[in-house]
Amino acid sequence: MKKRILYIGRFQPFHLGHLDAIKQIFEKESPDQLIIAIGSAECSFDRKNPFTASERYVMIEEALEEGGIIDKCSIIPIANINNNAIWVHYLRSILPDFQKAYSDSYFVKEIFKNSDIKTGDIQKRLPISATQVRQKMLDNQEWQKDVHHKVAEYIQSINGAERLINVGIE
Amino acid sequence: MKKRILYIGRFQPFHLGHLDAIKQIFEKESPDQLIIAIGSAECSFDRKNPFTASERYVMIEEALEEGGIIDKCSIIPIANINNNAIWVHYLRSILPDFQKAYSDSYFVKEIFKNSDIKTGDIQKRLPISATQVRQKMLDNQEWQKDVHHKVAEYIQSINGAERLINVGIE
Amino acid sequence: MKKRILYIGRFQPFHLGHLDAIKQIFEKESPDQLIIAIGSAECSFDRKNPFTASERYVMIEEALEEGGIIDKCSIIPIANINNNAIWVHYLRSILPDFQKAYSDSYFVKEIFKNSDIKTGDIQKRLPISATQVRQKMLDNQEWQKDVHHKVAEYIQSINGAERLINVGIE
Amino acid sequence: MKKRILYIGRFQPFHLGHLDAIKQIFEKESPDQLIIAIGSAECSFDRKNPFTASERYVMIEEALEEGGIIDKCSIIPIANINNNAIWVHYLRSILPDFQKAYSDSYFVKEIFKNSDIKTGDIQKRLPISATQVRQKMLDNQEWQKDVHHKVAEYIQSINGAERLINVGIE
Amino acid sequence: MKKRILYIGRFQPFHLGHLDAIKQIFEKESPDQLIIAIGSAECSFDRKNPFTASERYVMIEEALEEGGIIDKCSIIPIANINNNAIWVHYLRSILPDFQKAYSDSYFVKEIFKNSDIKTGDIQKRLPISATQVRQKMLDNQEWQKDVHHKVAEYIQSINGAERLINVGIE
Amino acid sequence: MKKRILYIGRFQPFHLGHLDAIKQIFEKESPDQLIIAIGSAECSFDRKNPFTASERYVMIEEALEEGGIIDKCSIIPIANINNNAIWVHYLRSILPDFQKAYSDSYFVKEIFKNSDIKTGDIQKRLPISATQVRQKMLDNQEWQKDVHHKVAEYIQSINGAERLINVGIE
Repeated sequence: MKKRILYIGRFQPFHLGHLDAIKQIFEKESPDQLIIAIGSAECSFDRKNPFTASERYVMIEEALEEGGIIDKCSIIPIANINNNAIWVHYLRSILPDFQKAYSDSYFVKEIFKNSDIKTGDIQKRLPISATQVRQKMLDNQEWQKDVHHKVAEYIQSINGAERLINVGIE
Repeated sequence: MKKRILYIGRFQPFHLGHLDAIKQIFEKESPDQLIIAIGSAECSFDRKNPFTASERYVMIEEALEEGGIIDKCSIIPIANINNNAIWVHYLRSILPDFQKAYSDSYFVKEIFKNSDIKTGDIQKRLPISATQVRQKMLDNQEWQKDVHHKVAEYIQSINGAERLINVGIE
Repeated sequence: MKKRILYIGRFQPFHLGHLDAIKQIFEKESPDQLIIAIGSAECSFDRKNPFTASERYVMIEEALEEGGIIDKCSIIPIANINNNAIWVHYLRSILPDFQKAYSDSYFVKEIFKNSDIKTGDIQKRLPISATQVRQKMLDNQEWQKDVHHKVAEYIQSINGAERLINVGIE
Repeated sequence: MKKRILYIGRFQPFHLGHLDAIKQIFEKESPDQLIIAIGSAECSFDRKNPFTASERYVMIEEALEEGGIIDKCSIIPIANINNNAIWVHYLRSILPDFQKAYSDSYFVKEIFKNSDIKTGDIQKRLPISATQVRQKMLDNQEWQKDVHHKVAEYIQSINGAERLINVGIE
Repeated sequence: MKKRILYIGRFQPFHLGHLDAIKQIFEKESPDQLIIAIGSAECSFDRKNPFTASERYVMIEEALEEGGIIDKCSIIPIANINNNAIWVHYLRSILPDFQKAYSDSYFVKEIFKNSDIKTGDIQKRLPISATQVRQKMLDNQEWQKDVHHKVAEYIQSINGAERLINVGIE
Repeated sequence: MKKRILYIGRFQPFHLGHLDAIKQIFEKESPDQLIIAIGSAECSFDRKNPFTASERYVMIEEALEEGGIIDKCSIIPIANINNNAIWVHYLRSILPDFQKAYSDSYFVKEIFKNSDIKTGDIQKRLPISATQVRQKMLDNQEWQKDVHHKVAEYIQSINGAERLINVGIE
């Protein structure tokens, strides 16, 4: 049987911390396949979720192609079902069987406790969070260094920072 | 830019006609990536949709691994939004940009007419339809030859035909 | 206070029977405003609901402009909530207050019984039903005479009959 | 710990076969509590689901009060989530823990196979099905004897058969 | 006819103020049945809604069994419909007819004004709110005295405070 | 072909700034029809959305009737679909074809950038925002002068300010 590992996040945007997490998972688990699930896939054009799943897919792909580990990764957008108690079961009905789940989110790890899927720990080796990257975009600060250079180029090509500013005006 | 092609179906179950369609698409398009979208991902355990997206993912993967074209394929489950008029737009917001769409369904091709995405034609070279395969399962007839042998083994391992019969009883 | 009357249907498509019903309502009620609610607004591209709400809006408007009663009509698309027991309450929360409701559907009239809104009767003076018009389209029969000539032109301009045939193929 | 058993159905309407099933469950299980879950709670005013959850609640209560086993029963309406693969998990997140599930439906029993909840068998001792009772209502045949006399009275008080006929007219 | 009263809340968690409210309702109304509706039933594992409906059901039941008034109470989880204007109508379509509604929430009482159901007043005799109890859990303060001792035991058995802390970390 | 312009807002409540925006659009565009789309139609009885679509419809109508431009306006409530990336496509599937869109919201204008519909600019000539009007209602300040006198009368007739205060209490 294939060893499949799940890594789940919203990736708004996909930053160097996420990339480092993926490297850690490969080091620790040597999976046959890493499923990178893009959570809240239907959310975009709001302050917490500026980018579409389509755009986040491209960010992840571009960053991983440079990193050379793309071949063992499957990127899969997952829309919300707005029911946290059964969300793990939803994931399992949508995704091929996986043996372990990783996430940067305490919330996700808490939710997995109610299932028989184990969760793994990611060491936070880079002081980057998506919330901070978005704040830098809003404040017109240097956010480009927090993401892979291919991701920075892509976000600029779609005027991502400008979008975030516009959707954030009350 | 990557040449990406979309092939979309419900794959209830994934049969040899689907596999042949994928081969045709590779012959005609030589895509960098073929996105195989599993439609109605949230549907299962009913007469038209006996299998979960998780199970259909595995069927496709097993059949393609034997075929050796899995490396250029990305399998992505897509839940319904119950609004046909904007479904193509939904696909585009969820999936990375693709240049052309293929489907065995006239319905899907009709829906794409309202967009600027072109659709391609698949030649029906094998006289197999998923509706017929399900009917054979219900009638306890030989359905195994209509699917890849790995898919047949998998469906048997999850008692798929029995499930279909049970969920079909009024 | 304005006298407002509601006329509700799916209008798939809007045919001469619907037009006659509207004339009857004006004769009987002389309303200040007739709200023409397009039900199942989110449904389209399926056998029972080939046309979008946008398209149905245009059909109604074109037919009524010729008829000269458009000025007292407001056309309002209404999406389904999939809960028949509270649907009348939903209508009332969305639409300005109306004093009476008309529909060709027994189902709609039954549902209004549970509210304090009265329903009126429409005399079926023309032997036309939307189900039959769609069947004629599917069978490539003369359906054009069952709808206002402006509606026939419009449906042809969007290849409506061809669409219905395509979305109906299993 | 309380011994709780689940009995789930749509109860459109609640008939003598359902009442007999409840008696069988009490005989076999002697539960501390029987949860009677009214499925498809949001469905009503259609051919397969003529009655609201509110009305079905009253039917069950009236029949059980006469039967004298109401004190150990809890009647709980459950709306659909339109995802069969995770429906059992949904039930478990909504209801207090139960040890075993009963249903007249093969579909429900099939769905429970994917969980670690056991299902029990009900012997069909009365030749009554809800589908048949509704058909009798539509055909203006004697349906009253298939339901508890209190249920018959209640359905008549809300003109249930007339409703079913009206919502069934195309 | 049965005298039925509705008491509705989210009960995140069920605390002594809720228990006192129930006692007040019994004193004032002497109902045949008190329906305790658990609102936002599908919400859990978030800061405002840490507990599942299943867990809240158990909390209420345990507290009332000690109080001895459980026999006249029916606990019914109710999922949201995200439409405040018709929510009262939804409740009435799901629940057996009730004559009066109680809630600690001004919001709920405001919504009932648009219906012909009267609402009753609960005197706030205990200085406890669910918001405060959750805050105490987050702050690792003594929250146990704000809930029935059986509820405190239950919350501890499911590591409720820890869950709340985890799902609250950004 | 008709020249149709879209003006979209939530109108919580409809104030003099909205009325001025409509006048500007008529001055600049001289449309055959102005579609006034009431966004978030299903939202009401909360702090950001106190009024139902029904009530907002009446506010707009009353203000425009006095203004004398009602004849060229169509007021259409639009419920949310909770997917910003495809919302413009949803609007287009529901509404008759329009050539240009206006909104006071930067968010709406950002979303239209992803479509081929142009957006127009409204000059903010009056220092009024709906957020401020609601705040004045909450603070029991003079809000009446920010809305058309007919709208003020209407809001008072439904105790709108009191409602807003009640639904805002935690």
